[in-house]
Amino acid sequence: MKDFFKVTAPDEVIAMRNDFPPVETEVVPLDQANGRVLAKDFVSPENLPDFTRATMDGYALKASSSFGASEGNPAFLTIKGDVAMGESPDFSIGGGEVARISTGAMLPDGADAVVMIEHTQALDETTIEAYRSVAPGQHVIQNGEDIPKDQLALAKGTEIRSQEAGFLAALGCKQVTVFKKPVISIISTGDEIVAVDEPLPRGKIRDVNAYTLAGLVVDAGAKPVCYGIVRDNFDLMLEVCRSALAESDIVLISGGSSMGTRDLTVQVLSALPDTTILVHGISISPGKPTILAKVGDKPFWGLPGQVTSAMVAFAAVVRPFVDRLAGRAYHRREAFKLVARLTRNISSVQGRIDYVRARLEKKNDGLWANPILGKSGLINTMVKADGLVAIGMNVEGLEKGDKVEVISI
Amino acid sequence: MKDFFKVTAPDEVIAMRNDFPPVETEVVPLDQANGRVLAKDFVSPENLPDFTRATMDGYALKASSSFGASEGNPAFLTIKGDVAMGESPDFSIGGGEVARISTGAMLPDGADAVVMIEHTQALDETTIEAYRSVAPGQHVIQNGEDIPKDQLALAKGTEIRSQEAGFLAALGCKQVTVFKKPVISIISTGDEIVAVDEPLPRGKIRDVNAYTLAGLVVDAGAKPVCYGIVRDNFDLMLEVCRSALAESDIVLISGGSSMGTRDLTVQVLSALPDTTILVHGISISPGKPTILAKVGDKPFWGLPGQVTSAMVAFAAVVRPFVDRLAGRAYHRREAFKLVARLTRNISSVQGRIDYVRARLEKKNDGLWANPILGKSGLINTMVKADGLVAIGMNVEGLEKGDKVEVISI
Repeated sequence: MKDFFKVTAPDEVIAMRNDFPPVETEVVPLDQANGRVLAKDFVSPENLPDFTRATMDGYALKASSSFGASEGNPAFLTIKGDVAMGESPDFSIGGGEVARISTGAMLPDGADAVVMIEHTQALDETTIEAYRSVAPGQHVIQNGEDIPKDQLALAKGTEIRSQEAGFLAALGCKQVTVFKKPVISIISTGDEIVAVDEPLPRGKIRDVNAYTLAGLVVDAGAKPVCYGIVRDNFDLMLEVCRSALAESDIVLISGGSSMGTRDLTVQVLSALPDTTILVHGISISPGKPTILAKVGDKPFWGLPGQVTSAMVAFAAVVRPFVDRLAGRAYHRREAFKLVARLTRNISSVQGRIDYVRARLEKKNDGLWANPILGKSGLINTMVKADGLVAIGMNVEGLEKGDKVEVISI
Repeated sequence: MKDFFKVTAPDEVIAMRNDFPPVETEVVPLDQANGRVLAKDFVSPENLPDFTRATMDGYALKASSSFGASEGNPAFLTIKGDVAMGESPDFSIGGGEVARISTGAMLPDGADAVVMIEHTQALDETTIEAYRSVAPGQHVIQNGEDIPKDQLALAKGTEIRSQEAGFLAALGCKQVTVFKKPVISIISTGDEIVAVDEPLPRGKIRDVNAYTLAGLVVDAGAKPVCYGIVRDNFDLMLEVCRSALAESDIVLISGGSSMGTRDLTVQVLSALPDTTILVHGISISPGKPTILAKVGDKPFWGLPGQVTSAMVAFAAVVRPFVDRLAGRAYHRREAFKLVARLTRNISSVQGRIDYVRARLEKKNDGLWANPILGKSGLINTMVKADGLVAIGMNVEGLEKGDKVEVISI
């Protein structure tokens, strides 16, 4: 009981993630790489593109052939040939010469720009007038302009979004080395919990955390494995925790809102080999009775049983560990958060971070966060919420109109 | 060619989505419902919770038994029994009586509050002193407080996040009726395009759009089906488009940056039965040469071939159609966008919405958007970007320091 009040600040908890190694890597086909994290630097194997391309329909030419051209004083140019789309032209362009070209096609040797078709007029089969001058490089993508050969294209730790996948495709990368998705075991405890597909005896509630935590795990880019409900029994719990540790990279055990279950989790941890309990409670609310242990080289979390407390603890401290194990160097969602103004004063306790559920509303003067009051055992408060507002450690409260960052959840 | 310049404003294009019906529904197990969209209102089948629960470890009592209690004047209370976790107590509580109770356990009849264990002291086996008075309802969750029976719990069109899944689990919902994931066909065209796993002849480029569009489709909660590359040939294209229309809910054909391919797409559309070309170009940049047709009751998009143009068109106009077909009533990501200030002036053309790629930077004074300059054929500009900044239709440009919304991409 006493130990429980040696709470650790969330920043200190998050810093502990650096003691845990990222998971192993695997090679996946590029079309399955969306959302995955690069496990190796990717260096461009070639120039992209590896030829100079037109970005407009028109005529490829030496830009100098068009210098001085205008509506009143057009340049007369000779059509040397057509560039077929996707072909390497077998002729070159000299001064006063042009080649018909479509967007995306390869410029002939000698040409360094394209004059748009809209700025020309064909006089006959072999001659055009151009009414605009173009600069060298105009309306073309240069050889190697997207990325030159041997340059770092994507760094290890980058999340592969649509554009990174496209970039890798453009460079001929058919498969990619990524970090495996961390596998996260979810165990629910508590004699008051029954599975969703079981009858609900009076005095019990259904296992909600298995669903909320599995969803958060998926959102974090990891893979949940649900172990169901374990009774408040030392031997049973030890056995399930052993299996979970063998089969996953992170273990989440939720429950222990009551002191009895909390103590049991600590007893089970003490019985596991190579285990250090790192954190016996965190200065966050809700979510304070959160336990973190290092078992071998794996993080083992004891999360509170109250649904909101468990979700907040996940968002506040577990998720950064998932990012670490997933090899993620950077997370846009973490880095850039919505900012909103509070619709009302909220009080807070100094010495801990209070996470207040909030509903967002977009008004003409910007985004407003409307705090949702309600007990942390009520999941409905999370359903109403668009995110969480963190009220800092050394703040006694915030006032209506104060700007706050919103953690999406 | 002329038709092409009758461009439609993006708002008008988006409004056309209401002419397309949502996809069909299916029943999925709750543990596979994350990210899916509810296809029916879900009404609470029971009170949640269906009994009154303690939210603290301590003693259940009639609040009135504690009235006036303080450190100097404790209330003496008799322990009537223990409530076992998850059990329905077989005794009731009268005035001056308490029951030992743990967080989450059911209050006995007669009790209406809990006094925290920290505010009590046991005098002997059957008597405690309480040093605080509690109000009725304090430290408990009331029967039906999360949601009462027969109330709308979640409305049709709601996206199932972790907390909605948890809410449904709490209410005993094992499976849920959701909209199917819209199936979206992706076809690449252009004689200059080769597949990523083929050799790259000089003058050709690899098929990037298949990867970028598939990623965007997945991010939009839909299911991509890739048809590979189709040569610029009427018969081939017609055949593939027919298959795609038969097998999917939306067709995306990308290519047609050159006029030839663009014309071919229009010819193919004209040859398909029950087809109306709704849009022949959109007043957005990049992305202007975007075609939208209604084929039967399905949207058919002709997207530009330039990678950035296709991605912007997807974000600006295709995605709202995906949301519509997916049955989504509301999209947090669309509703609430990051706001940043521009690091430099950017000019824009009136009469169209310019989408400028931007890299975000968090500084002490807030979020800044750094416009990324570069041709729309360069995918590297999208890789560098955290999002898109839209410069409105009737704006000639924006100045350094102006606040802008950022569309995540």
